Amino acid sequence: MYKVYGDVISGNCYKVKLALHLLDKPYEWLPIDILKGETQSEEFLAKNPNGKIPVLELEDGTTLWESNAILNYLADGSDLLLSEPRLRTQVLQWQFFEQYSHEPYVAVARFIKLYQGMPAERQEEFELCQVRGHKAFKVMEQQLKRTPYLVGDQYSIADIALYAYTHVADEGGFDISGYPAINEWLARVASHPRHVTMRG
Amino acid sequence: MYKVYGDVISGNCYKVKLALHLLDKPYEWLPIDILKGETQSEEFLAKNPNGKIPVLELEDGTTLWESNAILNYLADGSDLLLSEPRLRTQVLQWQFFEQYSHEPYVAVARFIKLYQGMPAERQEEFELCQVRGHKAFKVMEQQLKRTPYLVGDQYSIADIALYAYTHVADEGGFDISGYPAINEWLARVASHPRHVTMRG
Repeated sequence: MYKVYGDVISGNCYKVKLALHLLDKPYEWLPIDILKGETQSEEFLAKNPNGKIPVLELEDGTTLWESNAILNYLADGSDLLLSEPRLRTQVLQWQFFEQYSHEPYVAVARFIKLYQGMPAERQEEFELCQVRGHKAFKVMEQQLKRTPYLVGDQYSIADIALYAYTHVADEGGFDISGYPAINEWLARVASHPRHVTMRG
Repeated sequence: MYKVYGDVISGNCYKVKLALHLLDKPYEWLPIDILKGETQSEEFLAKNPNGKIPVLELEDGTTLWESNAILNYLADGSDLLLSEPRLRTQVLQWQFFEQYSHEPYVAVARFIKLYQGMPAERQEEFELCQVRGHKAFKVMEQQLKRTPYLVGDQYSIADIALYAYTHVADEGGFDISGYPAINEWLARVASHPRHVTMRG
């Protein structure tokens, strides 16, 4: 059985949980508290030298890290990962977009607000996150006006990657009511019969 | 023939160029000047709605973006992309590490120093890039002490992804002489018979 080292309210960890539920794979969840420095212990750094969650541990003790790499591992050969080369590339394209142009703003704003209670010294950074987060939402909206999922007609790990922090964007102070296609897509993702909520 | 929209001194664009040379695939290079705003034109945004280089254009006009997604597309089925599922996941793991924990510091410091000539208002950000860049180098050094390439014995697109900005880290003010395994790896990568330099 898989072991997942994670924090239930971290979007990056939720990606792994959601994929495991959609794929109906059993797992054991081992809670890690980043605010207590648990990702910086010697024991944890042996699992991920970069000191970040989530980590997926396989039965033989092999550990895999980086949420989107883990999604590709879990979904390989399933309907959640398109196999046609260009479509598979587009799945990765949206995942790299998520990590470079979306997560550093949408997730970081949420971290500042939800985890840190909006300290004054991060106010300026928070405002910048708002601007850049909305830029990312605009790019997503444009795609989701054209296709029901980020890569065409099929629910894939590209959607899982971007759903994770977009569906809790309000916790980072974002008002996303102005993006109708994103809101329809959020509802579409959540309507999957094996969907699980972040805190569920 | 592939078309590549890029800037020769951008590490993200160099990744695509290096992969095309290693794979011996012909391409046409179309220079894009980000400082002149050429990635924000309506014409360019039709190729990549996120307004970033590189973009790979296929013969039928399909465009693919995000440098690491493009690397996966180009290398699929070749020796540069390991096919065994765990190793393939580790290639992705290092590529996501590059985009989240390396590029935002190593490449951004270089941008501030090389492109912008170190403006005073970005000095503080530059210093933070130094700290976090060295953190990324330490993670790489630890792996490269154990294996000749980032994923075991085989030169892969994980190495291309991390070589791109590491080999010009000095242009971002980084002294990497204290990482012997990284320096040996840089020489190993550059010794490939089909290697091409960034400005070459």
